[in-house]
Amino acid sequence: MTTDILYSQICAKNTLLCVGLDTDFDKLPPHIQSRSARGEVALNGFLFGGKPRSIIDFNKAIIDATAPYCVAFKPNVAFYESLGLEGMRVLDCTVGYIREHHPEMFIIADAKRGDIGNTAKMYARTYFELMDFDAVTLSPYMGTDTVLPFLEYPGKFAIVVALSSNPSAADFQLSSAGEPPLYRRVIERMMTVSTPENMMFVVGATRADHLREIRSFCPDHFLLVPGVGAQGGSAQEVIEAGKNAKGGLLINSSRGVLYASQGEDFAKAAADVAAATARYR
Amino acid sequence: MTTDILYSQICAKNTLLCVGLDTDFDKLPPHIQSRSARGEVALNGFLFGGKPRSIIDFNKAIIDATAPYCVAFKPNVAFYESLGLEGMRVLDCTVGYIREHHPEMFIIADAKRGDIGNTAKMYARTYFELMDFDAVTLSPYMGTDTVLPFLEYPGKFAIVVALSSNPSAADFQLSSAGEPPLYRRVIERMMTVSTPENMMFVVGATRADHLREIRSFCPDHFLLVPGVGAQGGSAQEVIEAGKNAKGGLLINSSRGVLYASQGEDFAKAAADVAAATARYR
Repeated sequence: MTTDILYSQICAKNTLLCVGLDTDFDKLPPHIQSRSARGEVALNGFLFGGKPRSIIDFNKAIIDATAPYCVAFKPNVAFYESLGLEGMRVLDCTVGYIREHHPEMFIIADAKRGDIGNTAKMYARTYFELMDFDAVTLSPYMGTDTVLPFLEYPGKFAIVVALSSNPSAADFQLSSAGEPPLYRRVIERMMTVSTPENMMFVVGATRADHLREIRSFCPDHFLLVPGVGAQGGSAQEVIEAGKNAKGGLLINSSRGVLYASQGEDFAKAAADVAAATARYR
Repeated sequence: MTTDILYSQICAKNTLLCVGLDTDFDKLPPHIQSRSARGEVALNGFLFGGKPRSIIDFNKAIIDATAPYCVAFKPNVAFYESLGLEGMRVLDCTVGYIREHHPEMFIIADAKRGDIGNTAKMYARTYFELMDFDAVTLSPYMGTDTVLPFLEYPGKFAIVVALSSNPSAADFQLSSAGEPPLYRRVIERMMTVSTPENMMFVVGATRADHLREIRSFCPDHFLLVPGVGAQGGSAQEVIEAGKNAKGGLLINSSRGVLYASQGEDFAKAAADVAAATARYR
C-alpha cells in the first residue's frame, strides 16, 4: 500500500484510528470465552477449537464492527504466540479474514523485531511473504542493519520504535547529555536509509509534547501512535500536534476498543468507541 | 537452571561453547535438503514433511554430534518462524529433543523480544511455559518494563542485548557525548532490577576490547557472546577478557559449526569445529 492510498482511506472514513488486535482470552466477554468448549469453527480452510476458537470468533466480530471506523488493524504477535502452536495460524487466518472482507485495510504486525541482517531477512520473509502484512514494527537498538531487509519490499513498511508509551521508555530513549536524545538520533539515522514510502515511526501518545518537535525534523513520515485510551494519551492532542498534509498519523487503540463491554453487545460497544476516537477532521 | 549447575557443566565438558541453531534450509548439505521430498519423519508425536523434515533431521544430527562439546544450544526463532506455520512446532520439538536426549543443556530462545509489560508477559509465557526454554534474549530499547515479567520465573534467565556484534551496532549502542555509552547504561540500569541468577547480557565478540571494561562494573553476570566464527571474533581473546570465577561466558558459534561441511560428514565436521572452539582451560 502507498501512503496516498492510505491517505485516501483516512479521508474516506474520516479517521486516523488503528485498532490493536491484542486479543487476550482472559479478557474476552464470558459468552465468548465459553465457546472455547463448544467444538470447532472453520476459517480459511482450518478448524479452530479451544481458546483459538474464541479468539477467532472475537476477532471476526471486532473487525467487522470497527472496520467502518478505522483505517488499520494491528495484531500484536505476542498475543498469538502465547496461544501455543496454533497461535501463528490464528494470526495468519485473522490477516486473511481482514484481506477478504475489508481489503482497504492497512495491516500491521506489531512484532518489535530487531536482529542482524541475516536474521532480519528471515523475519521480513515471514511477515511480508508467508503472511500478508503491510508493515512490521521493529526495535532499532541494533542499528540500521536490522531494518534494511524490510525496506526492499515495495509497498511494505518498517515501523521503527522511536519513542514508546510505557513508563520505562525514559530509561534510555530520553537520555541526553549534550547530544540529542536517543529517540531523535534513531529517527534521524533511520531517515537516512528510508523514505516515507517504506518507513514509519512509533511515537507514544503519552508524550504529545514531543510530537511537534519530531515534526520539525521529520515532516513527512507517518507516525504510529500507541498509548491512546488504556495508556492515557489524548487522541485530539496527538492529532493537533502530529498531523501533516497526508494525515501522517495512525492512532492506535487496543484495550479501549476491544474490551469496551463484557456483554453480548461487545462488538457494538467497540464500534461506538472506535467511531468516537481519532476522527480526522 | 542455576549458574552453579551451568558452571558444573562448563567444567565437566571444559567448554564455554553455545551452538546457535540458526538452521537455514538453503544452507543445508544437499543430501539433507533432498530429504524434504521423501515423506515424513516423526518427532514428539508430530509428523514433519517438506523443509521442516530436513530441518528436523539436520538439527537432531547437529545436536547429537556437538552435545559433548558445548553447554548450550541457541535456536534463533526467526529461522523457525520463516518455515511457515509449522515453524513454531519444529522449534518446540527441537527443544523437546534436546531435553530428552541431552538434559544437561542450557537452552536459549534467541528472540530479541522487547515490548511493554502487558505484552512482555505474553512472550514470557510463550517461551517459559508453553515452550521449555531456560532463557530468552531481549532488546532493551523500551526499558526495564520489557524485562520484568521474564525475571519472575525461578531458574530462568532474561538475556539482554547490550552490545551486539553487527556493523550497525555502532549506530546507537556506542553513542556517547559526556555520558557513558548506551550499552553501559543499559547494563547498569538492568543490573538494578536483576541478579546474576535471572539475567545475562549479550556482548558481541567483535568488541573483545569492551569485555574487560564491562567486567569492571559487571563482574558476576554471565555474558552471551555472539560473533565468534562467521562474524570474525576470536574465542580465545574473548575468554581472556571476559571470564570470571564461574566461567561467566557462553560463547556462541552458529554458521561456523552448522555449515562446517556440505558433505555426508557434516555432523562429524560440526563436532570437530565445536571441539576446537571456546575451550575453557
